[in-house]
Amino acid sequence: MRTHVHRLGMRDPSDVSELAALIRAGALDPAGIVAVLGKTEGNGLVNDYTRGYLTQSLKLLLGKHGDKPLYIFSGGTEGVVSPHYAVFSVSAGNEKRPQGAKSLAIGCAVTRELKPEEIGTRAQVNLIRAAVEKAMQEARLAPDEVSLVQVKGGCDPAAKDPNRSMAFSRVAGAFGVGLALGEIADFSESDFFGNLNVYSPRASVSSGIEIMMNEVMVLGNSAAWSGPLRIASRPMRDALDLDAVLATLADLKIRRTEKDLKRVRAAIVKGEPDASGKVRGHRHTMLTDGDINAQRHIRGALGGLVAGVLGDGRIFVSGGAEHQGPPGGGLIALICEIGSDPDLIS
Amino acid sequence: MRTHVHRLGMRDPSDVSELAALIRAGALDPAGIVAVLGKTEGNGLVNDYTRGYLTQSLKLLLGKHGDKPLYIFSGGTEGVVSPHYAVFSVSAGNEKRPQGAKSLAIGCAVTRELKPEEIGTRAQVNLIRAAVEKAMQEARLAPDEVSLVQVKGGCDPAAKDPNRSMAFSRVAGAFGVGLALGEIADFSESDFFGNLNVYSPRASVSSGIEIMMNEVMVLGNSAAWSGPLRIASRPMRDALDLDAVLATLADLKIRRTEKDLKRVRAAIVKGEPDASGKVRGHRHTMLTDGDINAQRHIRGALGGLVAGVLGDGRIFVSGGAEHQGPPGGGLIALICEIGSDPDLIS
Amino acid sequence: MRTHVHRLGMRDPSDVSELAALIRAGALDPAGIVAVLGKTEGNGLVNDYTRGYLTQSLKLLLGKHGDKPLYIFSGGTEGVVSPHYAVFSVSAGNEKRPQGAKSLAIGCAVTRELKPEEIGTRAQVNLIRAAVEKAMQEARLAPDEVSLVQVKGGCDPAAKDPNRSMAFSRVAGAFGVGLALGEIADFSESDFFGNLNVYSPRASVSSGIEIMMNEVMVLGNSAAWSGPLRIASRPMRDALDLDAVLATLADLKIRRTEKDLKRVRAAIVKGEPDASGKVRGHRHTMLTDGDINAQRHIRGALGGLVAGVLGDGRIFVSGGAEHQGPPGGGLIALICEIGSDPDLIS
Amino acid sequence: MRTHVHRLGMRDPSDVSELAALIRAGALDPAGIVAVLGKTEGNGLVNDYTRGYLTQSLKLLLGKHGDKPLYIFSGGTEGVVSPHYAVFSVSAGNEKRPQGAKSLAIGCAVTRELKPEEIGTRAQVNLIRAAVEKAMQEARLAPDEVSLVQVKGGCDPAAKDPNRSMAFSRVAGAFGVGLALGEIADFSESDFFGNLNVYSPRASVSSGIEIMMNEVMVLGNSAAWSGPLRIASRPMRDALDLDAVLATLADLKIRRTEKDLKRVRAAIVKGEPDASGKVRGHRHTMLTDGDINAQRHIRGALGGLVAGVLGDGRIFVSGGAEHQGPPGGGLIALICEIGSDPDLIS
Repeated sequence: MRTHVHRLGMRDPSDVSELAALIRAGALDPAGIVAVLGKTEGNGLVNDYTRGYLTQSLKLLLGKHGDKPLYIFSGGTEGVVSPHYAVFSVSAGNEKRPQGAKSLAIGCAVTRELKPEEIGTRAQVNLIRAAVEKAMQEARLAPDEVSLVQVKGGCDPAAKDPNRSMAFSRVAGAFGVGLALGEIADFSESDFFGNLNVYSPRASVSSGIEIMMNEVMVLGNSAAWSGPLRIASRPMRDALDLDAVLATLADLKIRRTEKDLKRVRAAIVKGEPDASGKVRGHRHTMLTDGDINAQRHIRGALGGLVAGVLGDGRIFVSGGAEHQGPPGGGLIALICEIGSDPDLIS
Repeated sequence: MRTHVHRLGMRDPSDVSELAALIRAGALDPAGIVAVLGKTEGNGLVNDYTRGYLTQSLKLLLGKHGDKPLYIFSGGTEGVVSPHYAVFSVSAGNEKRPQGAKSLAIGCAVTRELKPEEIGTRAQVNLIRAAVEKAMQEARLAPDEVSLVQVKGGCDPAAKDPNRSMAFSRVAGAFGVGLALGEIADFSESDFFGNLNVYSPRASVSSGIEIMMNEVMVLGNSAAWSGPLRIASRPMRDALDLDAVLATLADLKIRRTEKDLKRVRAAIVKGEPDASGKVRGHRHTMLTDGDINAQRHIRGALGGLVAGVLGDGRIFVSGGAEHQGPPGGGLIALICEIGSDPDLIS
Repeated sequence: MRTHVHRLGMRDPSDVSELAALIRAGALDPAGIVAVLGKTEGNGLVNDYTRGYLTQSLKLLLGKHGDKPLYIFSGGTEGVVSPHYAVFSVSAGNEKRPQGAKSLAIGCAVTRELKPEEIGTRAQVNLIRAAVEKAMQEARLAPDEVSLVQVKGGCDPAAKDPNRSMAFSRVAGAFGVGLALGEIADFSESDFFGNLNVYSPRASVSSGIEIMMNEVMVLGNSAAWSGPLRIASRPMRDALDLDAVLATLADLKIRRTEKDLKRVRAAIVKGEPDASGKVRGHRHTMLTDGDINAQRHIRGALGGLVAGVLGDGRIFVSGGAEHQGPPGGGLIALICEIGSDPDLIS
Repeated sequence: MRTHVHRLGMRDPSDVSELAALIRAGALDPAGIVAVLGKTEGNGLVNDYTRGYLTQSLKLLLGKHGDKPLYIFSGGTEGVVSPHYAVFSVSAGNEKRPQGAKSLAIGCAVTRELKPEEIGTRAQVNLIRAAVEKAMQEARLAPDEVSLVQVKGGCDPAAKDPNRSMAFSRVAGAFGVGLALGEIADFSESDFFGNLNVYSPRASVSSGIEIMMNEVMVLGNSAAWSGPLRIASRPMRDALDLDAVLATLADLKIRRTEKDLKRVRAAIVKGEPDASGKVRGHRHTMLTDGDINAQRHIRGALGGLVAGVLGDGRIFVSGGAEHQGPPGGGLIALICEIGSDPDLIS
């Protein structure tokens, strides 16, 4: 099997013309699409309808192929972040690979619908854990081969405080991933928000009022897959962790030259405003600003940093990193093309 | 003469306790303060009163010394940017310096009050040019020794469109600086906003409704000054210009180690949302967002980038970079301590 | 002919279930739908995609009948304003009417697509004037029988300042309506924004980047139409003009009792923040607020006032009332059911 | 004794020139000022510094008289609400009054500073209850003569969720008032937010991070006071309760004529977004809007309604009406001049 990633732009959330052109040109088989991961230009909060609008527009375009993919959209293109979506598709892959070479592998799974009272409980954790395990099996990835698990968690739109429900759903997702990957051995529900040192550095979880099931996409590198793509990920210790970004580039043997940076095919960043109210000892105002939500602040800052390093604003950057990476931090994952360069294939 | 820079934090715009403590401890002579440059936590737009509140609070603290300094505050601490202010003071300096060694020099000047109809005209340009020349003389800096000219331009609060008046005032400031530094040979008023390739890469101009005069602070390195501080500046070609930030660090012989970065004493960044609607070919949404002003977007992105490099959110980052640095770009200036390390003093 | 108005709610901009239920129950013939007028819960500014999302959702529901209606949506449900849409449909109407009784008449028309350089010019004015005349003819309404002309004007999304392009398009719409209704005798383009005392008190114009043609809906009362609905409208002199709201109710013989107010079937309000910066002598802050756009402020205030009078938040309230009603003011139109009460039919 | 109310405007939160002029002209004795109640043009949320800025500016003006008054400021002048402040002062009053005539009485009191852990507990309730009783005694008002108790509650700025701390402080204030006025007989802490049918229809409570004590101002009508002012108040059942506004006017024998409305000297309104997500059966979006805080929404709507009735935007309108008036509603209080008209004095 072989994974393809096409990163496409849009004029607005109804504009799927770039994908239409690819399909028309035969460059992408719509039947092979397994997931679409994107940033839309809403506020990324409860009343952000750009996610649903893009989903509806894509489904209209894809017709009978439209119900299969996972649609994982994060709203909020603050600062230099550019609205875009990455289409993940798979095809049979049978080209010869050097002994031991690993390529990007992908697996997806979906849980049953949650009952509202299950949001943010052990029940949701267990469902997500099982879905991650199923997706790993599909991707033929061992836990230590996984670089990133992207989860979209269900959420109760009728909750008294939908933002709180969304946060609890993210936490359940992080614990589900951590259990499946063996990063978290055991937990109690009181750890949720309570013990922030329990976390998965490979979980990236968003939640939304538009779904009641949980969707899981697992990415890693596997010798069972072929193709020119590879992924690497690193935890970020805080919102200033330039070193983590540079190290992830180095993991993929990408230098910061214009030519090398063109090999980057997707960038996924998760972070959060430090709950202490300070970043490296200096006060930030993200959590007390009544005009701009803290999630918009942190996405703008992280997007500015990572886009500056990559020279490209097409970053899937998402806030709400509770139990995903270290407290006040998060993670970064990069997918790049290694092509046939023997040095890169290693 | 010798320049001192103290960078101080605050709990809110009324909190000047850190400066009070320094004065009380005898570490800073209030009579020597010539300028205060700071970021306050408002929105940085017309109705941002945190700038005035901090000014009033500082004047209350400084008493009879309070009317002398320039107060140059930019609102908006988006993302990881930390509310802070840098106090610039001068004292007699007579320590021995190696032959040819240059230290941070500072000069300040103020123009007369503008008439409302002078905002954004050749008249304002000429006033600012003359003030820059006066400040250079005070600082004993030749035009090519100047690293940064910070201008606070007057603005007509009764203008039909105060944001437009503020923008015109910034443009007049940029042209005034460019003329004084010899970067701009000649101009016509139709160049304002019309010919964005005419710019000063060393001008950083803000404007505000609270003043009708123009205030000018010139910074550079001069052999006529002593002390352990030095400044460097670079234009930024766009909001992703990590290379410019790294190069400015290199100009000051600062490596990106925790120890070296502690030598940074002030960071000044100017930028703007690219008017083309794209950054390096990818659409941004800063100019069409009805919820968050474009200036807040760009400050958050630039702040995220530069704070990531420096490991410190105390960045004086300001939007509205018309004719200040390349179109869609801006500039960065860093002040650092070189101490007595012979390698650094060079 | 006979006009029907169904006012429907929604959970979000994709929710057209109430209309689906009406159609399924046979209570509304989708083939008769001529216009949908609604408030969606975006910000009502350039990057408000809730309008397009609802349009897409309605077209999906209506299938082959989906291309015919005008879709006139205004974003922004500030304060107590409730997301909703009013479906205007027509059917053959032949019931007996008392001599001289008039009923709600409706006519719609569309202009050709504009070239970008035509926005806000005499050319657009003339196109809209012709469309209003055509719609009046369709509705068999004389100019003095018209109560309201709702226009959706085209706009150039690639304009340097899209908000300005939207404003110019609104102005062209107002002049087109004024000419067609005989309220404006002549004009020059310099009157646009320049001579605010030239206005149509019956024009309600919005504009949007999603269309390049202009859409026109004319409403009035005509003896040539039948049915239980009637419309009345009044200019509002400013945003505090409670008297205009009460007088419009009185025009329709509606008292402010719970029973009577149930007869209201649609409410359309247009207004703007007074450009003088004051309302009845007291400063307002709508035009200088950098956090909330002035249009959102004025919609919230007008919505609060009119909803308080009607006891119902389903108000189509829209900002941007340049040359629509008096400067700083706007207009109100109410559609109500008069049923068969002889006192009301008169 | 006699109460005076001067309602003054400002250009910005530093502008106290109108009060300065009054004092200079001898029209107002600064020694008599007991409270200042005002609306400033910030966001009214945690990071609103316009309240503190105006307080600092007034104290600077009042000098030695500046520490005595209560400063009760609410941020947020959404829509047509005008920035202003009402200065309450007292003087000896000895003019003859008709038998039984009552005039506006005022009493103020302050509690000790709270410990952070006391916020939102029975301890805070009891402190506020005692302060209300003390202020009533000072005002010589019996509980049934009280029209309004305005409370400014302390709040823990270091709380994990300052907005929550502010809400709990408001609730404690409402219960303290209700107990002092005999409206609430008994309570348990589980009633806080839990039993919204326990409320005081005469309590208007705000809270702020700037103080740790609680401030109380009691207003009512008393035969022991003289002067031309009188107060009336009514609960509002929801944000559309025009009838309550009209009834309060009627209580004061004010008709809605331009001449009569000039007699209004202060308007105080409290309300909240209905927690059910609906107002009179129709969905509102105040609680799910990620761009504009719900408090800003509700102030804009209530301000629009009440300003429309009074023809004047100088409304002290404040959100956060938990246990102050009915759930989803709030209250309105008006102070007016009755002069010497025997009909009005009654």
